[in-house]
Amino acid sequence: MNRALIVDREGAVERWTLNDPASRNALSDAMVVGLYAACLRARDDPTLRGVVLRGAGGAFCAGGSLGGFAHAIGQPLQPGETDPLIAVNRGFGDLLHALGSLPQWLLCAVDGPAMGGGFGLVCCADIVLATERASFATPEVTLGLPPAQIAPFVWRRLGDATARQCLLSGARWSAREAQAAGLVNRVVADGAIDAAVAEATATLNRAAPGAVAATKQLLLRLCDDRPDLRDEAAIAFASALRGPEAAAGLAAFANKRPAPWAPEPPGTEPPKVGRS
Amino acid sequence: MNRALIVDREGAVERWTLNDPASRNALSDAMVVGLYAACLRARDDPTLRGVVLRGAGGAFCAGGSLGGFAHAIGQPLQPGETDPLIAVNRGFGDLLHALGSLPQWLLCAVDGPAMGGGFGLVCCADIVLATERASFATPEVTLGLPPAQIAPFVWRRLGDATARQCLLSGARWSAREAQAAGLVNRVVADGAIDAAVAEATATLNRAAPGAVAATKQLLLRLCDDRPDLRDEAAIAFASALRGPEAAAGLAAFANKRPAPWAPEPPGTEPPKVGRS
Amino acid sequence: MNRALIVDREGAVERWTLNDPASRNALSDAMVVGLYAACLRARDDPTLRGVVLRGAGGAFCAGGSLGGFAHAIGQPLQPGETDPLIAVNRGFGDLLHALGSLPQWLLCAVDGPAMGGGFGLVCCADIVLATERASFATPEVTLGLPPAQIAPFVWRRLGDATARQCLLSGARWSAREAQAAGLVNRVVADGAIDAAVAEATATLNRAAPGAVAATKQLLLRLCDDRPDLRDEAAIAFASALRGPEAAAGLAAFANKRPAPWAPEPPGTEPPKVGRS
Repeated sequence: MNRALIVDREGAVERWTLNDPASRNALSDAMVVGLYAACLRARDDPTLRGVVLRGAGGAFCAGGSLGGFAHAIGQPLQPGETDPLIAVNRGFGDLLHALGSLPQWLLCAVDGPAMGGGFGLVCCADIVLATERASFATPEVTLGLPPAQIAPFVWRRLGDATARQCLLSGARWSAREAQAAGLVNRVVADGAIDAAVAEATATLNRAAPGAVAATKQLLLRLCDDRPDLRDEAAIAFASALRGPEAAAGLAAFANKRPAPWAPEPPGTEPPKVGRS
Repeated sequence: MNRALIVDREGAVERWTLNDPASRNALSDAMVVGLYAACLRARDDPTLRGVVLRGAGGAFCAGGSLGGFAHAIGQPLQPGETDPLIAVNRGFGDLLHALGSLPQWLLCAVDGPAMGGGFGLVCCADIVLATERASFATPEVTLGLPPAQIAPFVWRRLGDATARQCLLSGARWSAREAQAAGLVNRVVADGAIDAAVAEATATLNRAAPGAVAATKQLLLRLCDDRPDLRDEAAIAFASALRGPEAAAGLAAFANKRPAPWAPEPPGTEPPKVGRS
Repeated sequence: MNRALIVDREGAVERWTLNDPASRNALSDAMVVGLYAACLRARDDPTLRGVVLRGAGGAFCAGGSLGGFAHAIGQPLQPGETDPLIAVNRGFGDLLHALGSLPQWLLCAVDGPAMGGGFGLVCCADIVLATERASFATPEVTLGLPPAQIAPFVWRRLGDATARQCLLSGARWSAREAQAAGLVNRVVADGAIDAAVAEATATLNRAAPGAVAATKQLLLRLCDDRPDLRDEAAIAFASALRGPEAAAGLAAFANKRPAPWAPEPPGTEPPKVGRS
């Protein structure tokens, strides 16, 4: 049994809860495998009408596991060996693709930080709800990594200009800023997320399940699936993770030092770029 | 003479008025044929500079004719017969394509409800004006139907996230909500629509006709024409219309009962999903 | 030495200043050549982390040189001659492509008018800052010309609906209107642009240079490069420039008369179409 993802069901709706509060639900291998398996089951379940994705313990998802990254870097490649990190990262892209291709409606309920890969999960949703205390960022570039697999999903949900702004600056958005950016559909008070989910579920369940599946299928056809980009992204990510920037960036982060390229110490709130 | 669409001309600008107030200008076959013929004439008329599309009698367009759908379902297919509904729906996609490809500027003036297929017509415009009493929704999924032909045009005008929100929830937007969503360019007071149309016409006629045609042509080249998607959409729509969801959904609507899949009776205002 | 573009460097950041205040930094051949050369140098400079593009003397860029256009029209083609204007316009498209493909972050600081081709330059940026006195418009169609090379970049940054609105109406936007349209990320008081550039530079330099390059590369892959569209746009532009609309439009502009197709004299502020 996979405790990294808790799946429960109420009527025709499943709730998928990312469950590793100690790491703010960072994307462990077990969590990615659990989510991917849940997507495959959902795809073949004609009785399922919708999925609510959320995080346990006051976080949504802190993104990739930095500990896991450090471990991976510590295992040098043999000459001629294909980097296993490529397949791992490609697998995360496959998860995003599966999540974005569910025939059911997908609602994300964000009640805490949604960072990096967690931000990417949010971009796969049809409807996004957030509490006032939710926050959103893609800090990958500040660690020396490209936000590789999530880029196409961020770009699709936010458009080119806003995707550029968040992916290149790593700026942190409040729930209201994320709403202004088009990421979040509705912001509710802390504590009101369950009621908001129930309300949105009732709205979405006014739609017929088959019609929802057909509509989502037609929308997906407008954004060509690009498995070639998932390959490219995986290579770019693995290559960056093996490179000197990520080594320096992850070490700096772990030691609460500024990265060698950064103009000021971490912990300083970055000046806001963008919507003022 | 086609009374379902009234075409009149003032100088270099035509006004096309959807004219079946009793049905809130629902898209009858005669109306679709009239609009398509008007598009073909416009395409070949070098003296025409712009088109204002509006509805008669305080509505814009209620969308597809539910009576027509019921009639079509009532005529079962013979074994081996190609569903004539496919061609009918494909024809509506061809109309949307022709309307979106006019070499002249196209302004929609919405002074009442613009629903379903009517919402799709609006998405083909270059500029959209609306009165305070205008309203917008794509309720197809709540009737058991995919918003099939309109999906690419909604997606192009609103972007992926907003298209998803309106197409999957069927939520009704006020004119202000439609402006926030990027569908409407300007909202004016009820009764001020003629003045707003005149003002927008004057602005748009500052542009040279040949330059407008060349610009629109270049913009169209950025969204590849996808006749294959019009085929797919037509098949998806006809298949849904013959299926059990639409039968139940349309019967429920006609009888003011809730659809079998719906969580609450119709007539209850759906809770708002989206921009709060 | 090219004085039409001043390049200076502070640390790892270059500042590129369009420098012909007398013409409000209209895009002369020398300026286009200078910018293109700067892009090529930047592409191959691993020590460069970012570029700030701005204009000298209280303007950003007035767009194409109308004097240059008039000169070009005055030189009729020989029978069978390929129009040299096609290559000139194609070259501007190549510049926009190079600017939009820089591996470094690109920030535009707009402290005055950004018109036509200058508006196109802005659309190539990752982040756009503007002062309250900045203004934005694409008036090409009002002169009888299609906004040809800039169309794909405007469309990418603003989305289809907003691109249509500005390209077809030629309406002038204030800095705040440009922010609402998604063109500008942040508006600051007149006189505060240097501080805002420094602040944004500090934010952007928190990102690792290699990660920025990899991220921008992945984003570019989502918008297929369309050299065929640059060809088409160049032919459309040159053809329009040789045609009767542009002859009349440019002459009218030079003589402060209304264009023959225009409903009212120039100098009248056009009624606003769009976000009210």
